[in-house]
Amino acid sequence: MSFLDEVPWSGEGLIAAVAQDARSGRVLTVAWMNRDALKETVESRRAVYWSRSRRRLWRKGEESGHVQRVRELRLDCDADAILLIVEQEGGIACHTGRESCFFRKLENGEWVSVDPVIKDPAQIYKR
Amino acid sequence: MSFLDEVPWSGEGLIAAVAQDARSGRVLTVAWMNRDALKETVESRRAVYWSRSRRRLWRKGEESGHVQRVRELRLDCDADAILLIVEQEGGIACHTGRESCFFRKLENGEWVSVDPVIKDPAQIYKR
Repeated sequence: MSFLDEVPWSGEGLIAAVAQDARSGRVLTVAWMNRDALKETVESRRAVYWSRSRRRLWRKGEESGHVQRVRELRLDCDADAILLIVEQEGGIACHTGRESCFFRKLENGEWVSVDPVIKDPAQIYKR
Repeated sequence: MSFLDEVPWSGEGLIAAVAQDARSGRVLTVAWMNRDALKETVESRRAVYWSRSRRRLWRKGEESGHVQRVRELRLDCDADAILLIVEQEGGIACHTGRESCFFRKLENGEWVSVDPVIKDPAQIYKR
């Protein structure tokens, strides 16, 4: 698939992938994709990332059920980042049970948690 | 400044930085920050990145005038990405003269430019 070849998969073979909620407009997550992850994302219309810590494909929501259904995919001008416009299942993208992973805001020189926990992580990850 | 120490500056010493327009809600740019860039961003309230290609601090807008004034800074749950909510000077973030660097959309297996050029780059970069 030619669109995969427009990404310069050099070095670690990863591209930054930003997911933005189609409804709220919030930036939910920043994660990483390799070629296989991008290919599967496009084919399945679900966000699939490359987990750098686990060194394997990470089908977002595979444990939590918080799948990101991809409505739109965009590539930036120098092809080193991808933007996914998604419908976030459950309205929760973060493993802490919050809508967005960006729940800490810089206030007076400190990162302060400012967003509510929508669901207790213990209720999301049941093993 | 303690907030700088909460970022794990390991490896290349960089963190991904996503800029989102405060008014339109659009994701404008994905760039990189090192410790100095984040420090200066917070102090000056203007987005300062680390240019990986030029290997120096890049004060966004230093040539184009398209400064990003930072209204809010957020850190994600695993502290490997920063979100900047910005007021984009000129309404143009991309060196191609478009609002956002994410102007290419995947349509039928091809990246297609779908956003208008607001200003001719030749009029932005006059040297």
